[in-house]
Amino acid sequence: MINGLYSGSETFLEKARALYPDFYETEYYPLPESLPTDNELWHGKSFILDFGTHIVGYLTLSMQCDGDPGSPLEAVFEFAEDLCEYDPRPYTGGLSSTWIQRETVYMDDPNAPFVLPRRYAFRYVKVTFPANTNYSVKYRSCVVRGVTSADMSAVCPLPSGTGDFIRKIDEVGVRTLKNCMQSVFEDGPKRDRRLWLGDLYLQAKANYLTFKNTDLVKRCLYLFAGIPHDNGGLSSAIYQEPILKNQGWILHDYALFFAGTLKDLYEFEKDPEIVNELWPVALRQAEIAAEAVSENGLVNTAYYFVDWCGPLDKSVAAQGIAVTMLKDTLFLAGVAGDNDAEVFLKGQIKRLEEALLKLYDPDVGLFRGITGQISVQSQMWGALSGVLDSVKTRALLEKITTDKELCEVNTVTPYAKHYLTEALFRAGLTEQGAEIVRDYWGGMVRAGADCFWEVYVPSDPDLSPYGDKRINSYCHAWSCTASYFIRKYGLK
Amino acid sequence: MINGLYSGSETFLEKARALYPDFYETEYYPLPESLPTDNELWHGKSFILDFGTHIVGYLTLSMQCDGDPGSPLEAVFEFAEDLCEYDPRPYTGGLSSTWIQRETVYMDDPNAPFVLPRRYAFRYVKVTFPANTNYSVKYRSCVVRGVTSADMSAVCPLPSGTGDFIRKIDEVGVRTLKNCMQSVFEDGPKRDRRLWLGDLYLQAKANYLTFKNTDLVKRCLYLFAGIPHDNGGLSSAIYQEPILKNQGWILHDYALFFAGTLKDLYEFEKDPEIVNELWPVALRQAEIAAEAVSENGLVNTAYYFVDWCGPLDKSVAAQGIAVTMLKDTLFLAGVAGDNDAEVFLKGQIKRLEEALLKLYDPDVGLFRGITGQISVQSQMWGALSGVLDSVKTRALLEKITTDKELCEVNTVTPYAKHYLTEALFRAGLTEQGAEIVRDYWGGMVRAGADCFWEVYVPSDPDLSPYGDKRINSYCHAWSCTASYFIRKYGLK
Repeated sequence: MINGLYSGSETFLEKARALYPDFYETEYYPLPESLPTDNELWHGKSFILDFGTHIVGYLTLSMQCDGDPGSPLEAVFEFAEDLCEYDPRPYTGGLSSTWIQRETVYMDDPNAPFVLPRRYAFRYVKVTFPANTNYSVKYRSCVVRGVTSADMSAVCPLPSGTGDFIRKIDEVGVRTLKNCMQSVFEDGPKRDRRLWLGDLYLQAKANYLTFKNTDLVKRCLYLFAGIPHDNGGLSSAIYQEPILKNQGWILHDYALFFAGTLKDLYEFEKDPEIVNELWPVALRQAEIAAEAVSENGLVNTAYYFVDWCGPLDKSVAAQGIAVTMLKDTLFLAGVAGDNDAEVFLKGQIKRLEEALLKLYDPDVGLFRGITGQISVQSQMWGALSGVLDSVKTRALLEKITTDKELCEVNTVTPYAKHYLTEALFRAGLTEQGAEIVRDYWGGMVRAGADCFWEVYVPSDPDLSPYGDKRINSYCHAWSCTASYFIRKYGLK
Repeated sequence: MINGLYSGSETFLEKARALYPDFYETEYYPLPESLPTDNELWHGKSFILDFGTHIVGYLTLSMQCDGDPGSPLEAVFEFAEDLCEYDPRPYTGGLSSTWIQRETVYMDDPNAPFVLPRRYAFRYVKVTFPANTNYSVKYRSCVVRGVTSADMSAVCPLPSGTGDFIRKIDEVGVRTLKNCMQSVFEDGPKRDRRLWLGDLYLQAKANYLTFKNTDLVKRCLYLFAGIPHDNGGLSSAIYQEPILKNQGWILHDYALFFAGTLKDLYEFEKDPEIVNELWPVALRQAEIAAEAVSENGLVNTAYYFVDWCGPLDKSVAAQGIAVTMLKDTLFLAGVAGDNDAEVFLKGQIKRLEEALLKLYDPDVGLFRGITGQISVQSQMWGALSGVLDSVKTRALLEKITTDKELCEVNTVTPYAKHYLTEALFRAGLTEQGAEIVRDYWGGMVRAGADCFWEVYVPSDPDLSPYGDKRINSYCHAWSCTASYFIRKYGLK
């Protein structure tokens, strides 16, 4: 490794470029019942078109002037994934308000179809004509050219006997993944439109059971491998535009998911070639995570995301992620035939497991963070790490699913909920896992979701990690795994 | 003539297309002293770039982000020909507010040069960054690609001995004409960006003494001739975009200026070919004007523009325009060798002159409208019509220039002021004509004009025919003729 570049980094980027996907385009039209009936639109009047589903694409609007326009037409477009985005109160969020999908355009020819130049993610578009023109306009037509790199024809139908509600949840999950599949696996097509390793890990899992676009997974792995930080650590996210670059953030859990994603790819394709090729990258993430372990054997939680969750003591969850992913890395060492690394990884796993076990409270049969906190996040990652035997693991998970009050801190995001659900299914608690799919992901469907949301806490529907619900993403990659569970575990 | 089309109408449009002009491009940069010094632009901050001169063109702005942008940058551009356009009070004008030159854009890559897609007319551009982004930006560069079909190298320098102030007035006049010369002679590049016959008549006059672009004059004449109204009457204005069409308005004075413009072209080029070709069109305008004359021999003033001027009794001015232009048409009949038309036109001129003479009040030596009103507009068109002998004409003009209180109604626009000034020069009142150029057009220059304005009444600087000064055009074709007077009459 020289200056942070793996031998072959340039080759990785070339391979990523060669795997740039084809796109599938679909035309979408607004629901007839949402078309405006007012034929004298001008002077602050507006209408909201409802496309009936969530779309990622490019909009063309055609209006018709009453009489001779003589002057340009001003039109304001406000795109919304969820109707809450039309709340007129001032934006108070911490993220840039420029993620709010709004455009003001001047149509020099008000009768000509106007093609908005940027891509939007939305179900609704509100069109307002603020100007006091000398003419009015009426609606003629609107069409959206939806874009995705996901091939819908590759998705197998659910088995007969699957109930309508599970079908509906799966449909929403598949749509979520589809709309996040563009030139990379994006986290959210409204915001940040970026390739995050934590999202990729889950998207790839859902992808193998739906679109089976392994090329896009490979492209994303090559992109991460092609532009590491100076120490060889992977960035948590990658910008494609305007120039390919990694984000400054360092998250060890995200970097370790590179191994998890590579292992899942191998298990799907059984092709050792890409494992051999990317093995040094995967190993380096384990080395970096190990270097940051303190004398007491615990990882440095400052480098772990785990969940959007203010009061969370991340010590157990971070430790559990490190153990789980180092085990995946060890699996890859076997495929790559790297015996030295196997010895190294086994030693590290042992050290991390010993420290993790110290955080298990045998009296209550649960993990406690170093602050003594009991959280869902600690239990699910403690369970997934495999550090306990299967009886204790199952008991732990049964406890927290039976007594919902047991944990001081619960998950906030569908991303974190994924790991809880996965832990339940792996422990054989199939009913409890299926219940989460029905209640939690199904709860979003019952609330009218066209795609799964970035943040969902049923008891706190206005929650936003950004201080304003309207900037939340309502089609978010890390929330797509309802379809993974439905298809992997045959939910009916 | 069939269905309003002259024989050869299609040929006229083909010829107009073939005469589509070449464009001259110039790069403009803002004055260094206007560049923003604040390096932390965001969150409602703004700056105003001053380009030091009036430009018509396309703007590219480059900003630089402090750190990692991560989200789009919202920028609002407000273009102004005159600083009065930045008055923040709500717009109250009668014309569409969409003529106000404003754009809101989202720069997905805030570090990339952003090319605004539409053409603007401006000296100033205010740039505001309304959004509360997670980063600030600083100014990097701005360039405007100025466009015109006027060839500056064709303009002869003024003779040595010409004073600085006359040079300055001429410079502003030449710039006004240049910035209105695009794919046609536009009335104003900010608004309406349209080919008006009344403006064309004056622009062509100034053009022969400056840019000498006869092709553009011919192109405009062919366009008018190519799309007449059903009765063969010419439209007062033509839209080029989105499809070539004439405006619904009918103005007989404007239609008659077709003959005036054709006569001026002939006098400049001495080429009878285009006169022969367009003669039926010119004659038809005279016929239509004559058809609308009432039994008392007076034209129908409802079809005459004359000036922006509420309380004006237009009877004399309209009659004077008709006489003047029928005389130009008679001149063209001679070139075209149309003897029948000569007989017809002479008869019409006689009838109109007789009616006009009845509006001359020999006791005061001035024209009075049918309501008895004495206006500058009546005197100037009465004088230009040649209906009085030269002594009476000169006396009339001397009266109104000596006693400014004599007329109840004065001119409002530089367009109308042109005809007063021309009347003075033609009558040999050179000093009085030059005084208007120095005081009136020079008054705009002293007030800081980069181009000559659509409306200028020194005693009423906030006057607007549209109810809001900010929608006035500050680079207006019909105001460019200061350069015509300076160059034709050798002002020093």
